[in-house]
Amino acid sequence: MPTVSNRGKMMPNSPIRKLVPLADKAKAKGIKVYHLNIGQPDLQTPPEALAAIRNIDRNILEYSPSEGIISLRNKLVHYYSKFQINVTADDIIITTGGSEAVNFAFMSCLDPGDEIIVPEPAYANYEAFAIAAGAVIKTIVAKIEDGFALPPVNEFEKLITPRTKGIMICNPNNPTGYLYNREEMNKIRDLVKKYNLFLFSDEVYREFCYTGAPYISAFHLEGIEQNTILIDSVSKRYNECGLRIGALITKNAEVKQSVIKFCQARLSPPLVGQIAAEASLDASPEYMLNNYNEYVNRRKFLIDGLNRIEGVYSPIPMGAFYTVAKLPVDNADKFCTWLLSDFEYEKQTLMLSPASGFYTDPDNGIDQVRIAYVLKKEDLAACLNILQEALKVYPGSKVKRVVKNN
Amino acid sequence: MPTVSNRGKMMPNSPIRKLVPLADKAKAKGIKVYHLNIGQPDLQTPPEALAAIRNIDRNILEYSPSEGIISLRNKLVHYYSKFQINVTADDIIITTGGSEAVNFAFMSCLDPGDEIIVPEPAYANYEAFAIAAGAVIKTIVAKIEDGFALPPVNEFEKLITPRTKGIMICNPNNPTGYLYNREEMNKIRDLVKKYNLFLFSDEVYREFCYTGAPYISAFHLEGIEQNTILIDSVSKRYNECGLRIGALITKNAEVKQSVIKFCQARLSPPLVGQIAAEASLDASPEYMLNNYNEYVNRRKFLIDGLNRIEGVYSPIPMGAFYTVAKLPVDNADKFCTWLLSDFEYEKQTLMLSPASGFYTDPDNGIDQVRIAYVLKKEDLAACLNILQEALKVYPGSKVKRVVKNN
Repeated sequence: MPTVSNRGKMMPNSPIRKLVPLADKAKAKGIKVYHLNIGQPDLQTPPEALAAIRNIDRNILEYSPSEGIISLRNKLVHYYSKFQINVTADDIIITTGGSEAVNFAFMSCLDPGDEIIVPEPAYANYEAFAIAAGAVIKTIVAKIEDGFALPPVNEFEKLITPRTKGIMICNPNNPTGYLYNREEMNKIRDLVKKYNLFLFSDEVYREFCYTGAPYISAFHLEGIEQNTILIDSVSKRYNECGLRIGALITKNAEVKQSVIKFCQARLSPPLVGQIAAEASLDASPEYMLNNYNEYVNRRKFLIDGLNRIEGVYSPIPMGAFYTVAKLPVDNADKFCTWLLSDFEYEKQTLMLSPASGFYTDPDNGIDQVRIAYVLKKEDLAACLNILQEALKVYPGSKVKRVVKNN
Repeated sequence: MPTVSNRGKMMPNSPIRKLVPLADKAKAKGIKVYHLNIGQPDLQTPPEALAAIRNIDRNILEYSPSEGIISLRNKLVHYYSKFQINVTADDIIITTGGSEAVNFAFMSCLDPGDEIIVPEPAYANYEAFAIAAGAVIKTIVAKIEDGFALPPVNEFEKLITPRTKGIMICNPNNPTGYLYNREEMNKIRDLVKKYNLFLFSDEVYREFCYTGAPYISAFHLEGIEQNTILIDSVSKRYNECGLRIGALITKNAEVKQSVIKFCQARLSPPLVGQIAAEASLDASPEYMLNNYNEYVNRRKFLIDGLNRIEGVYSPIPMGAFYTVAKLPVDNADKFCTWLLSDFEYEKQTLMLSPASGFYTDPDNGIDQVRIAYVLKKEDLAACLNILQEALKVYPGSKVKRVVKNN
């Protein structure tokens, strides 16, 4: 029997999805599982997108152009201009989700052995796509005590070698919710310029910034226009993760040319998804504002609630809809597993993502979890309650057990 | 400015899509372009699939499981059983088109420097996905004089090295329309067994076999069940290329485990596409038979017509909906370009795929083109006429020009 590739062996299991079989077992036992592990919002897809799907007026669902439908790309030009991101339709390549945009960016820019630097905790699939490309991710730990701010520039410079090809950021950040400020973005710009690097900037959460601080796109940074590759997706913005429509945006002609060859190899992004994504751009301001306000409320409610539980600490996330919280447990992996396999509170339990999956060294974040606040407030209230109860009885809990008065 | 990866530079341009800008220019001049270059059928998507899309009863278009919706996978088990392909839902992983299935198969089985052997002319994107994986494609030319039959086994054996990890076949074949017979399939099986190789078998055209000869799946070959990776897609079967739904099917647990990690990294295949693909499996026998009969007629009409044109030769394809024909021209790349940029006949022209893109050595197939018979008979009649007229006036034509009697 021939063996799989080393790459196949090295590919990480998704930290978000690896506990799914345990969750399925819990559900089979009649336990309600609250999913805080995955960025799958419970909010509705825009009615415009659903209508576009229901009113599809084609009888042949054919390939679209490899780089995406031009009407969608034109409409995105207008969308980005509202964020002072000035690009043309030629700069926008439609991808099968933001995932494919990351994949094509890495495949186009990184050769086996090339290195990229990523502040962590980081979205786990960056590492997966780097491994797929044969590239090496070097990470710098952003500390929970600093609220996950950008690590100092000299930490980056220590990692730079002749093989360093780029820096990858996610802003607003998944998993931490951190939003880089002007000073931090300028530091990144200066590094990119000084060492002639690519800047891969995942900005899919741009519409979710909560503190009044401005969203600064990589495309707002002067002098690195040719270095910048922006990753985008409609998944989170419009609650339509299943469409699998994203975009890779670059002004670098050589990168574009390479990415388009990868696009041609996979023929076309999904047609119906593109039609729905285009309609989503017409979502009403009310729809967008309602979603936004919902997250504002959930964020406040969740973070307040977490920090009220003994031994739990969450920094206040400034954007996206995640937080990385520190729990009073020996090991978050064990705790998350235990929640699904050995615990229930009134026939309910939680599914969380152990933060270890967001660090390259699994010892980092050993007592941290990522929580996605994608459930409504009542559900979050139930979740906080379940978490509190679980920490009382989890064998590896560091919180003093409550002695029951019988 | 940082430079793109060598891989990005090595990625081939699609031979099917690279002439698109010229076609667009011709259209802008008011010339009708008949598309024989791409396997995009003009037949309708099953009404069941369109209805499933139009009646979608969800308000949140969320991620599906990474390996695909279970109801679709279960239904495919039944579908494959009709072809004596006995697999379970666990063996079927839903991919974003057959393209992603090839990509994940190569990424999971081939490391940089590993080699696979492919009889050519071959579907161009196999090479693209091999390059993406850092693997090396070694090719053996199947000759037009032999009707593109499987080259002799000793030709394969000459190419086998310690780095050889697999053989890739497409059966029925794109671009040649060749269908491997039992003897040929047994030879492939014996090679796979003897050298402990993977067999990547792209069988997306299984429903299009025209000669009464049986379709023999790689899964019909005994003793190599653990070596076999089947690539499938609903695109061609149901005229729904734009859905981007395919499948990777394997009984090899190690391969499965690796492929699922690649699936998790890209989160989920398209949701709406899966819903429509599942409904497509209910397409009526009449719908399937009408499509089949349509191709039977087109095939007969096209191949007869081609072989009647002076200097043109096409073997008789036994399956799929392509043929590779030899034209009386100096260079098919030049001819195909010229058709779009310098020729018109009664305000019409043709778009063909130069066969050079289906060979690794561009000198092979220098006078060959791939023709997809995806247009209705009247259109094919017009195409044959245009081809005949074009060959009369093309500067590099080897056919004696007709002297006009004024």
